[in-house]
Amino acid sequence: MRHLSAGQLARLVGAGPRERPYYRAFADAVRAAVLDGQIPVRVRMPAERDLARALGVSRTTVTAAYDLLRERGFLESRQGAGSWTALPDPALTPDNPWLAVDGDGLIQLHAAAPPAPSALRAAMTEAVEEIPRYGMGNGYHPLGLPVLRERIAARYTERGVATRPEQILVTTGSQHAIEVVLGALAAPGDAILVESPTYPHAVDSVRRRGARVVSTGVSADGWHEDLVSGAMRQVGARLAYLMPDFQNPTGALMDDATRSAVAAAARRSGTLLVADETWAELALDEVPRTAPMAAFDTGGRVISIGSASKLWWGGLRIGWIRTTAALARRLAAHRASVDIASPVLEQLVVAALFDRLEETRQERRRALRASRATLVAELREHLPEWRFTVPPGGGTLWIRLDSGSAVSLAEAAACHGVRIAPGPWFGLEGTLEGYLRLPFTQPPQVLREGVARLVTARRLGRTGAVRAPDALSPVV
Amino acid sequence: MRHLSAGQLARLVGAGPRERPYYRAFADAVRAAVLDGQIPVRVRMPAERDLARALGVSRTTVTAAYDLLRERGFLESRQGAGSWTALPDPALTPDNPWLAVDGDGLIQLHAAAPPAPSALRAAMTEAVEEIPRYGMGNGYHPLGLPVLRERIAARYTERGVATRPEQILVTTGSQHAIEVVLGALAAPGDAILVESPTYPHAVDSVRRRGARVVSTGVSADGWHEDLVSGAMRQVGARLAYLMPDFQNPTGALMDDATRSAVAAAARRSGTLLVADETWAELALDEVPRTAPMAAFDTGGRVISIGSASKLWWGGLRIGWIRTTAALARRLAAHRASVDIASPVLEQLVVAALFDRLEETRQERRRALRASRATLVAELREHLPEWRFTVPPGGGTLWIRLDSGSAVSLAEAAACHGVRIAPGPWFGLEGTLEGYLRLPFTQPPQVLREGVARLVTARRLGRTGAVRAPDALSPVV
Repeated sequence: MRHLSAGQLARLVGAGPRERPYYRAFADAVRAAVLDGQIPVRVRMPAERDLARALGVSRTTVTAAYDLLRERGFLESRQGAGSWTALPDPALTPDNPWLAVDGDGLIQLHAAAPPAPSALRAAMTEAVEEIPRYGMGNGYHPLGLPVLRERIAARYTERGVATRPEQILVTTGSQHAIEVVLGALAAPGDAILVESPTYPHAVDSVRRRGARVVSTGVSADGWHEDLVSGAMRQVGARLAYLMPDFQNPTGALMDDATRSAVAAAARRSGTLLVADETWAELALDEVPRTAPMAAFDTGGRVISIGSASKLWWGGLRIGWIRTTAALARRLAAHRASVDIASPVLEQLVVAALFDRLEETRQERRRALRASRATLVAELREHLPEWRFTVPPGGGTLWIRLDSGSAVSLAEAAACHGVRIAPGPWFGLEGTLEGYLRLPFTQPPQVLREGVARLVTARRLGRTGAVRAPDALSPVV
Repeated sequence: MRHLSAGQLARLVGAGPRERPYYRAFADAVRAAVLDGQIPVRVRMPAERDLARALGVSRTTVTAAYDLLRERGFLESRQGAGSWTALPDPALTPDNPWLAVDGDGLIQLHAAAPPAPSALRAAMTEAVEEIPRYGMGNGYHPLGLPVLRERIAARYTERGVATRPEQILVTTGSQHAIEVVLGALAAPGDAILVESPTYPHAVDSVRRRGARVVSTGVSADGWHEDLVSGAMRQVGARLAYLMPDFQNPTGALMDDATRSAVAAAARRSGTLLVADETWAELALDEVPRTAPMAAFDTGGRVISIGSASKLWWGGLRIGWIRTTAALARRLAAHRASVDIASPVLEQLVVAALFDRLEETRQERRRALRASRATLVAELREHLPEWRFTVPPGGGTLWIRLDSGSAVSLAEAAACHGVRIAPGPWFGLEGTLEGYLRLPFTQPPQVLREGVARLVTARRLGRTGAVRAPDALSPVV
């Protein structure tokens, strides 16, 4: 293998970089030299000690620079053999900066998360103007700010279930709401009923406390009320976690008759019904009007979870729980040992967005409709063997593949620049291998490019090392 | 008992209130009438049905109004006996709106949480200007925004321990950081060493996962290194949670020799050292310069926790973890099932505050010094029997009472308009009854009034029903 001496490298890259921190500027200069071809690939780099001396910096600085180059794929090392230059996996190179999350350069079709609404900045500016009213306080409001709790309660009332602000607990996103409900109400060994397929982070949260996960099937056509009710009764479910409104991932919408029957069954079996209504505001077609699950409640057994993430933006991290005033206080006390309270400014932003509810909702619905139409058209044209029901709302298509494994396809897709969420991520025991969830939350041009990459991935298969699904890109 | 007919009440209060929601406006009107003496106390209110008819509203509306009045203490009810007007506990009436948290009207001396710095609004305005750069993304950054991770890493480097951004995980406050570390690294039955006294929400978090809490003593004079090291070894501690920098509640500062010895002992006993450095930036006197605990680390065994809450504001809910890059990623994957990620805007605000670090830190130090001087002077004048060491930094005094129980005193104090945190809240088994923590994070005039109320409470004792410590006012 060719090698570079410390003196050569110091001259090539220059003792030049003056930006701080030095190790990063130095690593950037090496990266640029490799990309420009000034330093070829597979050239052995000098020992850290020698390079430190040649550059007149500390050994630690060189170590940090080498670490960074290794992390970015421009350096490979092996014990005893030293380090040599390399090129990172092409799939890692960002081709479009605003498609990339945390810089991995893949189109992110594993997440069903829309961009921010155009009113976000105005809502934020308004919220900042309110801050002086809160700044003298200590900033901790475990139940949430009264102004936001009032707006959330009023919206439930408008949607058909009378609600007082005292019944609302503001959370740091809907996942946090799930975590708080389970943390306070589920014990090891409890049976918890979930849908299959379901939202995977909720299952993580159930499993982490040693509760027993039991599932009931759901498809784009909906639920079998008798199976849901039967499962609650037979396993003596402590809690059932359901998504009646444009279920993630299937997009199914539960009708009022089924809601009523499921709520009655929950009462008979002593099950708490946790209704995750994250997508509830996003009907895209003319669907029969449904009331929130809590409207069918008798006896405070329905705990509703809502979120600002789909209607507005995931980057806000604000969700909420609607329950009885007494349980809201109990859950708030529990959260003190989770995250104490939600950020004040974020809550004021969401309150300001509630004041623009209809306008922002229409914008989101228009965008989702256009994206849904594009995704459906692209799939029908380029992947006509795949089967799916177009959901009347929400943000995801649940696709049945004609053949092969969605897990293999996801591995191939990552090699070709698109990250997707295969069926087993939404199942319980590695099932659902023949399914795939595709979101239509991104703009049409991104979806077109994503489908094109999927077609390539399907044709060529894997073209490099398998990239593990990245736990740092949440599946929402 | 006197009673009001539905017609009388309707006339008194008027079908008048036109603000929405009606039930709240109606309840407010009844409250005002009781406070004005137009409706006497202990007058029976009409049945809900009759009142609904008289007002021409639904029965549900009247129920909601009555519920609200009951919650606020203006109505009492007993099955079969109906409902009658009442006056809430005087301690519940807000006398100074900006001292109250969630409207309970007590001076909040149970929390060590300063008000926001004057630069907060400017930092927020700057952050909002950055938002368009992030709005097209999905908003989920489980490790934290690069701009903030860079600033946090640079600050560690400045403070004496070289740190790369890859080693930083941004969390939703320091309690959340504790929760994430314990959630990922502590299993049921693990021995976890904590200080006694210690930060109570950390203990909640340990206990909730069935880990075993073991303690080692600390006082304002500091730690006994041999006892800390011995305890780690003898119980085979999986993890030790320590606050070396102005320990909460004692204010003790660990010197470098002790840091070094404790870190070495942790390595020998295979213990992970979780150093909560929430108060580290807030030395108030000239103290020997100490390096962050991680500077004494060998082998990635020190996990550092930091926070924006004390230096800047608790309402921001931003904290961080410094560890190895590999463990930072593992912890970030774990948090996906806790809260997914921290809010984007809040992170940008904290990044903007880091750009004003020295200026905001000096402001906070000046305020804390003034408040500390006031609290110390007031206590020496009015409660000279109480003993304490004035800490060289942080935000709390740890006080040894001359006699009696701090728990009884806290109960009496709540009756006289001040909420305090008695010693047992910081202990493990109901010990520390003779101690009290008082924060000096609030302005001098609030502390003066707080001490005056304490003096009254000590003289008069309880003057009403015992008010349980309110779990919704976090002890930070």
